[in-house]
Parts: sequence; C-alpha cells; structure tokens
Amino acid sequence: MRRREHGYRSSTAMNTLSSYDITVLFMGIALMLGSGRLLGELFRRLRLPPVAGEILAGIIIGPSLLGRLSPGFFQWIFPAATRGSTAMEAIVYMGVVFLLLVAGLEVDLSSVLKQGKTVFTMSAFNIALPFAFGFSFAFFAPGFFGGQSDLVLALFVGVALSITALPIIAKILMDMRLFHTDFGMLVLASAMVNDLFGWIVFSVIVQLASTGALQAAAVARTAALSVLAAVAILTAVRALINQALPWIERRTEWPGGVIAFVVSIALVCSAVTEAIGIHAILGAFLAGIAIGDSPHLRAHTRDIINQFINNIFAPIFFVSIGLRVDFIGNFDPALTLALTALAFGGKFAGSLIGGRLSGLPVRQSLLTGSAMSALGVMGIIIGLTALRYGIIEESAYVSIVVMALATSLLSGPLIRAFLPAEAGGPLTRLIDASSFLPRLAAATPGAAIRELAAAAALKTGLDSALIAGRALERESIMSTGLDGGIAVPHARMAEIGAPSLTAGLSPDGIDFDAPDGGRAHIVFLILTPAADPDSQIAVLAEISRVFADESIKRLALRAADHIEFIRIIETARAQEKRE
Amino acid sequence: MRRREHGYRSSTAMNTLSSYDITVLFMGIALMLGSGRLLGELFRRLRLPPVAGEILAGIIIGPSLLGRLSPGFFQWIFPAATRGSTAMEAIVYMGVVFLLLVAGLEVDLSSVLKQGKTVFTMSAFNIALPFAFGFSFAFFAPGFFGGQSDLVLALFVGVALSITALPIIAKILMDMRLFHTDFGMLVLASAMVNDLFGWIVFSVIVQLASTGALQAAAVARTAALSVLAAVAILTAVRALINQALPWIERRTEWPGGVIAFVVSIALVCSAVTEAIGIHAILGAFLAGIAIGDSPHLRAHTRDIINQFINNIFAPIFFVSIGLRVDFIGNFDPALTLALTALAFGGKFAGSLIGGRLSGLPVRQSLLTGSAMSALGVMGIIIGLTALRYGIIEESAYVSIVVMALATSLLSGPLIRAFLPAEAGGPLTRLIDASSFLPRLAAATPGAAIRELAAAAALKTGLDSALIAGRALERESIMSTGLDGGIAVPHARMAEIGAPSLTAGLSPDGIDFDAPDGGRAHIVFLILTPAADPDSQIAVLAEISRVFADESIKRLALRAADHIEFIRIIETARAQEKRE
Repeated sequence: MRRREHGYRSSTAMNTLSSYDITVLFMGIALMLGSGRLLGELFRRLRLPPVAGEILAGIIIGPSLLGRLSPGFFQWIFPAATRGSTAMEAIVYMGVVFLLLVAGLEVDLSSVLKQGKTVFTMSAFNIALPFAFGFSFAFFAPGFFGGQSDLVLALFVGVALSITALPIIAKILMDMRLFHTDFGMLVLASAMVNDLFGWIVFSVIVQLASTGALQAAAVARTAALSVLAAVAILTAVRALINQALPWIERRTEWPGGVIAFVVSIALVCSAVTEAIGIHAILGAFLAGIAIGDSPHLRAHTRDIINQFINNIFAPIFFVSIGLRVDFIGNFDPALTLALTALAFGGKFAGSLIGGRLSGLPVRQSLLTGSAMSALGVMGIIIGLTALRYGIIEESAYVSIVVMALATSLLSGPLIRAFLPAEAGGPLTRLIDASSFLPRLAAATPGAAIRELAAAAALKTGLDSALIAGRALERESIMSTGLDGGIAVPHARMAEIGAPSLTAGLSPDGIDFDAPDGGRAHIVFLILTPAADPDSQIAVLAEISRVFADESIKRLALRAADHIEFIRIIETARAQEKRE
Repeated sequence: MRRREHGYRSSTAMNTLSSYDITVLFMGIALMLGSGRLLGELFRRLRLPPVAGEILAGIIIGPSLLGRLSPGFFQWIFPAATRGSTAMEAIVYMGVVFLLLVAGLEVDLSSVLKQGKTVFTMSAFNIALPFAFGFSFAFFAPGFFGGQSDLVLALFVGVALSITALPIIAKILMDMRLFHTDFGMLVLASAMVNDLFGWIVFSVIVQLASTGALQAAAVARTAALSVLAAVAILTAVRALINQALPWIERRTEWPGGVIAFVVSIALVCSAVTEAIGIHAILGAFLAGIAIGDSPHLRAHTRDIINQFINNIFAPIFFVSIGLRVDFIGNFDPALTLALTALAFGGKFAGSLIGGRLSGLPVRQSLLTGSAMSALGVMGIIIGLTALRYGIIEESAYVSIVVMALATSLLSGPLIRAFLPAEAGGPLTRLIDASSFLPRLAAATPGAAIRELAAAAALKTGLDSALIAGRALERESIMSTGLDGGIAVPHARMAEIGAPSLTAGLSPDGIDFDAPDGGRAHIVFLILTPAADPDSQIAVLAEISRVFADESIKRLALRAADHIEFIRIIETARAQEKRE
C-alpha cells in the first residue's frame, strides 16, 4: 500500500500545482478580470474604447504602479517563473487565440470577394505605404530602437504599422451607423484583406526571428507554408466546416455542440500553424474566418461565443498587456510620437493613392484613411509577439502599445471630422405621397425591392427594372437588413441628379438577413447620385439614427400615410435635438 | 542592445511555454473537447447521461486504451510533468471550479429554508446512513482498499457515499416533469442540504489528509474555518452580491459586466477557501449559491455562463477523469459492487427512516431514495480529490467513478419504477364547464389564484379563501411558472377526497416567474387530497407532458369552452400514444 509507505502524498510531490500556486493563480486572474472590467466600463462611460481601460488596469496593477508602490504584494500575486506563472501564461495565451477567433468570425470573406477590384487596390496601398514608412524608419534610423539597423526589426516595424484593427473599425462604423454604406463596406473589406495579408507576413517574420537566420530557402519555406496553411484553411477546411455545421446543429444539443466544435477547430488550426512555425494566432484567425463565413452559424451561437470570450478571455489578455512591462520606466515619447505620425501618414497616403486609382473623391479617401488608421488590438498583439521573440526591446513595445491606442482613439474623431455636414433632414424632405407605401405586398427582399423600385420609377422617371437591378446587385454583396426590423436596400445611380427615397411598411415582416435574425418591418429604397457619395452616407446614417429608437419604430410602422410617417420622424428628430 | 548580444531569444529561454508546449497543449485540449462532446452527444441520443460518454471518451484517449494501443502518440499529446502539463492541469482545475460554480447557481437556498423541517429530517438521514455504511465498510474491511484500517480513509468513503449529485437530480426531475411537484421540491431541497454539508465535511477531511495528522486542535480549527467560510459567503457575501448585481447590471454593458463579476467572485471565493486549506471547489460552490440566490441574476446571463461552462470547461474536466488512470488495469469488480450496493442501501434506508419520521407514505420514501441515490459528478469530484491527496489508490478511484456513474444511470429507471401508475387521463376527466375559465381577468399570480380558487370553491364546496390561501402559501416557497407559458399553482388539502382541477386562460399572460422569463397563458389550479400524494404527481406530470407541445398550447389558448379545451388535450394524448 503505497499510501502507507509514503504517508499522505502532498500535491507538490506529484509535480503538480500546489494549493499555494492555485490560490495565487486564482487571485491573480480575479484581480486582472475585476480591475480590467472596472476600468473598461469606466472608459465606456467616458465614450473611450474599453480596451484602453483594460490595458490601463494592467498598467496600474503591473510593474509600472503596483510594482513600485507595493513590490511585495505584486511579486506575491504575479510571481515570475513558477508553476503558477506558467499556468497564467497558458490562460493569457488562450485568451489571445480566442480573441483572434472572434476577430476572424467578423470577417465576411464572401463580401470581400464580391466587391472586387476597389477593395484590393485600396488595401494594397494601405499595406504598402505604411509598410514602406515603417520599414524605412526602422532600417535607416535604428537609433530610435537602441541599436544598429536590422532587417527583421525593419520588417517587423513595417508590418506593425500596416495592419488594421478590424474589430475596432467594425465597432466605430456600427456606432456611427455607417456600417452598411458603400464607404463602410469598402473600409471593412479592405481591413479584412489588410489583416489577412498582415498576419501572413508577420508569421514569416516571426519564423525568421525564431530561427535567427535570413536564408533565402528558409524564408521561401515559411512563406510557402503560411500561404499554404491560409489557403487550406480558407478553402478545404472552410468547405468542411460549412458541411459539418448543419449536421452538428441537427444532431447535437444546440448550441452546445456547435460551440464545442468551433472552439475545437480553432485550437486545432492554432496548433497546426504553431507547429509549422507561424504562430498560433494566425491559425485561430483563419479558423474564425472559415467558421464565420458559413451561413449555418446562427446568431445565438455567435452571441454566446462572443460574450464569453469578450468578457472573460479578452479582458484577461488586455490587462496582461499592461502588466507585462513597466510602462512608466520604458516610455519613450520621441519613438511613440514618430511611430504614431508614421502610422497616420502611411494610412492617409495609402488611402489617397488607392482612392485616386479607384476613382474615389478626395473626401471619401480621407474618410477611408481615418478609419484604416486604427491599429488597435492587432498592432498590440504584433508588438507583444515581437517582444516575446526578442525582436524589440521593452521601450519599443511600450511605444507600439501607446501608438496603437492613440490611433484607435483618434480614428473616430477623424472620421467625424471628414463626414459630410448633415443635409438638414433629407428623410422628411424626400418622402411624399408617391414614395410611401403603407402596406408592402412583398414577402421576400427581391419582391420588396421591385415593389419599391416601381414607386421610385414613377418619381425619378427611370426604368423600374433598372433601379431594381442595381439595388439587387448591391444586396447580393451584403444584405442590408439592420438590427431591429429595418432594411435599407440602396444603389448609387449615374442616371439621377438628386437622392431619392421610397419607404414601405410590412406588418408581417420580410427576412432581409439582419444580424439579429429578425424580420424587417420598415424598408427604405435609397437611390443616390453616383457622383455624390456623401449623400448616401448622410441618408443611411440618418435612417439608422432615427429608427434606433424602438418606440419611434413601432409608431412609424402603424403610420397610415406619408404625412403621419413624416410627423413621427420629425418627433424623433426634435427629441434627439433636445437630448 | 540586449537582443544583439544574445541573438534572438528563443521563447523557452524566457522560462515560458515553448512553441512545442503550446502545440501539444492545444492539440490535447482539442482532442479532449472533440472526443468528449462526440461521445457525450452519442450517449444523449441513446438516452444515457452525456457525462458518462465524456468520461468514456477520456478512458478511450487515456492510458486505458490509447496508451496501450499507441504509447508514443499518447505520451506526445498528454505528456507528464512538462510546462504544458502544468498548464493543462490549471485549465482542468478551472474546469471543475467553474462546474461547481454552475452547480451552486442551481441551489435555491431560499426555497430550502422555506420548506423547513421535512427537508432537514430527510437530508439528515440521507447523509447519516450512507455515511455510517461507508465509514464502517472502509474501517472494518480495509482489505478492499488494500491496507489496514485508517480513519481518514473511512471518513472519506463515508462522505463519498453520502453526497448527492444535485445537477443530475435536477435534470432527471425536469426530464420526468416532476420538478414542481412536492416530491420534486423535497428531493431538490434535501439534495442541496446534502451537498452543502457533504462539501464542508469533505473539506475537513482533505485538510486532515494534507496535514497528515489527526490532532483534535487541527480538526477543530479546520471545521471552524469551513463553517465560517460557508456562513460568511452565504450571508455577508450573498447580501453584498445581491446589492451589487442590480448596480452592475445598470452601469455596465449587459450581460458582459455581470458575467465577469460572477467569474471574479467565484475565483476569489475559491482562492480564499483554497488558502485556508479547505479546497477551491467549496468556495466556488458557495459562491454559486450566493450568486444564484439573487433575484437580480437574469435568465440570459445564467444561460451564457451555463452554456460556456457546460460545453467547454465541463467536457474538458470530465474527459480528464477518464484520462487520469488506467481504468482497465485498475478495475476492481468486488470493490465497485460493494460501494454501489452500499450507496443504494444507505440512500434507501435513509429515505425510509427520514420519510417515516416526516409522515411520508412508503412509496414516496422509495421515490425519494431513488432520486437521492444519484451520486454522479459530486462523487467523482470527491474521488478525484482524494486521489490527488493520496487518500485512496487508483483502483479505489476507478471503483468510485464507476459506482458514481452506475448510481446516476440507475436513478432514473428506479424513479420510474416507483412512480404511481397513470390514472388514465385525469386531466380530461377533471375538467368540466364550471372548472374552465376561458378568460381570466387577473393580471397577477395572486389574483389568478384567487379567481381560480373561487371556481374551485363552487365545485368542491370548500371556502374559496381557504383554497387560495393554501395555493398562495405553496407559491411563496417556489413559484410554479413552467417554461413555455404554463403555470401550475397547487395545494394538497386534507379537506378533499379526490383531485380537483381548474383551468384558466390568459391571452395577455401573467408573470408567474417562470425559468424562461415568459408569461403564463394557461394557468391550472390543482388541488389534491393530502392523503394521496401520488395524485399530485400524476396530474402535474400529465399537464407538463401534454403542454410540452407548442402547437397544442397555442390551440388550447384559443379554446372557447371546456369542450374544445378537452378535445385539444385528447388530440395531444392520441398523438402521444401513436408516437
């Protein structure tokens, strides 16, 4: 009887986590989660990005502040090089992998491919110029990074500046109600291409850094493996997932089976990319794209995955960013300022050139540049990985984190600055008796668009089939159903000189494939002059804003004629002004 | 420039997880999660508990099978004593802590306290007898455990047999639609008391085992600390949580803020109990009770926490149970059989004595014994902890796991065997013109009960206020709103000789505080003779069964009179028989 011989085995003797390790680990996680969420929520109330608050929490409870004020407590709760710290590292690492999974879920590959050339032109220049700026800076002014010029470092700074934070941009566009405009779609699609390309290049750099050699054969091998992994996951694995999802939904207890499947796939893809030397986060990101692209992933499943990852794993990861180094001791204002300037410069120059080649007006290019300049989380993750692999020093890491936060914070205000001034109530000006259909007969999006197009044809003098065709074409790229029962099919037409709006009510609702899965009860067909992209942004943004209010929506749905409908919208505008 | 001097630091040099560690860790977790869910779902389809399938998955991919068939692969994916295995252990440990959090969330402390004496009599004997059986067996026949008699071992076997698996019992009662009967409430409340007491005793034993001494002072100290922690968490912390939850819901982005708060509280409580030497899982369980008891925790928040823990953390933990030891090599049929027999014997003897003292008929006591005998997850966790602390050998661990599974698998069939034979359609027999109210005027549960009681008074000849009083008293213990728009207020009355049923329809719905948060549209007032507890079970079970069908419910809600209502119920019964 072994037990008798040895007495009671203590758990440490089994080379496992001791009771002490567990106590410290749980306390550490609770402190990170609690303080992170607290400051995150505080930032949200101040209308700042919660992520910045979570990183600040890490700086406060990290070596920068707590470590100075109470070194004993700090070393107790965040010990270095113990079994507990290894466990903590694994949990933080899972946090960033899951975060990239969620970021990937937001990428809509199909809509990128459908938008075609403009997206690729735009993203090519939004990658190339910031990359060139960053590369040259690090290569020719290595003094800023504390050493002599180094190819890996230069490559890394180039990538760090050319990436774009898709989740932050998506959030800004949603908050500004620009998500469904042509501008919003272009920015989102370009950011997706940026991210995909950026991560692949970054994987190659990481591989270079970890082997420490710059042999042509090794570079070619890693690049080939990266592209191979990306292509395999985005084609074969994607098709497999799309086949498997409905089967799993049918056969397993929903949504549990799907959630476990999604997490397993993400972990396997991460492990595969990590094993071939190109970092686990690329695998998780690609897995997210492959999974999110399936029309079979339901909104409720997505919601549960998002909620748990965004509220548990993400805060732990973001707090760990601030926790990692001493932000005060390592802060280098000159480097931070230089990187921030280069990031903005690169994105604006890239957007202006890309926009010029795609025939976009300057204002639209500036808008795009403002949105694309948010480096956010992606920049930080790249900085963190570079720190782990010893590509950069702690001071450069601090500068990159601050720069990434600064670009994200400034992106929203910049977009607002370049937005067209409001046209003074286009909605009510554009609606009259002939452009308001109190009872749509249609039961499908196509029929609704044709019904509204017929009314619009009477008013604009254009062919009804032409209008419907354009709107349906746009609809096929990305459906225009908004959350909360509104749909906004739209088209830009060279044939008209002024915006035209037709509204229809559908008490039974029409399934416009809205993110929340609800049916659309109020459908607007929006036609704007091709030469005036601003007008589309103005009309779409105003519709989303006015009908964000649930009671306005309910009143409007019961409107008997256009006079009542306009009166309700004016009530909403008046209340909005008073607030 | 440090980087130059050392070349690129590899990640292993930083005493962190290497790329290899991460690859293996992620692959291991994905294999556990994937295989666990797969077999879990398979078991569900075979109408067996999914937990058993998940444990079986662990046995298959563990040393019992995979380790024999392919030792190389097994040792690669589940390495022992590496940095990766430490990380894996932390993740599994978080899994069981979160699992106990969810189990605690299901405990409704208020309803236990309101039911009073019967619950405490019942649970006292359901703890005392199995404990006595297990203790005596291990103390007087230590040969089964491979050694001489040992107090800690005997105490442990006693507790292992006296615990009850609350989550499994709740699931069985829900599946059998007995959750809201007096029988169901008694069993659930007794199981809660059992669990709470069992975990406290177990914590004391663990503390004894880890100090290795049986000094009176140490025992007293640990017992006092356990009780103190339990009382503090269930009173002060509970009150604090109840105050904080509405504040957090109001001020933070719902439900993210609440989820993070719940997880943080659970981790802190776990760390505190672990630090004072009484195991982290007790803290998580108590935190769950304290949080779940708050009326401010909304159903959607609960759902997200449950989904993620039950579908990610729980399967990983359950698979790890089978993964831990060689189940084939260590299987001891005699010990397994002996433990299983003692578990059933103890629970049945305890229920019969407890039932006798509380004045329950024998059949009800046998029903209670059947339900209380499911040891399930709780027994397994206790066995696992005992193995970790070296209190038991691997063969005893295997026997306890198999015994816990066997009792859980047999519990359902045993309940079914002791259930009263169906009365042959009491519903349709009991409803006539005077006991059917096609339009309830009431807008609150109290008013609805009084309205239905007035109709029942006419039929039974009893005082309407007496009937309403009894039903309201029952309602105050635990609301009778079922998922899907049904409410079943009920009372047992000494004054009547046969069951009486009154049904009312409420198109606007009445908020009976159902688990799904929906309003009740069909309300039944059920009165059964106090001397015949079986009749209550029969009527309640049939109502839940008939109205589980959504379309039957919708048809019934539109019934104009009792004849149509009865016809719809008969349609449901006929369809049910055909299936």
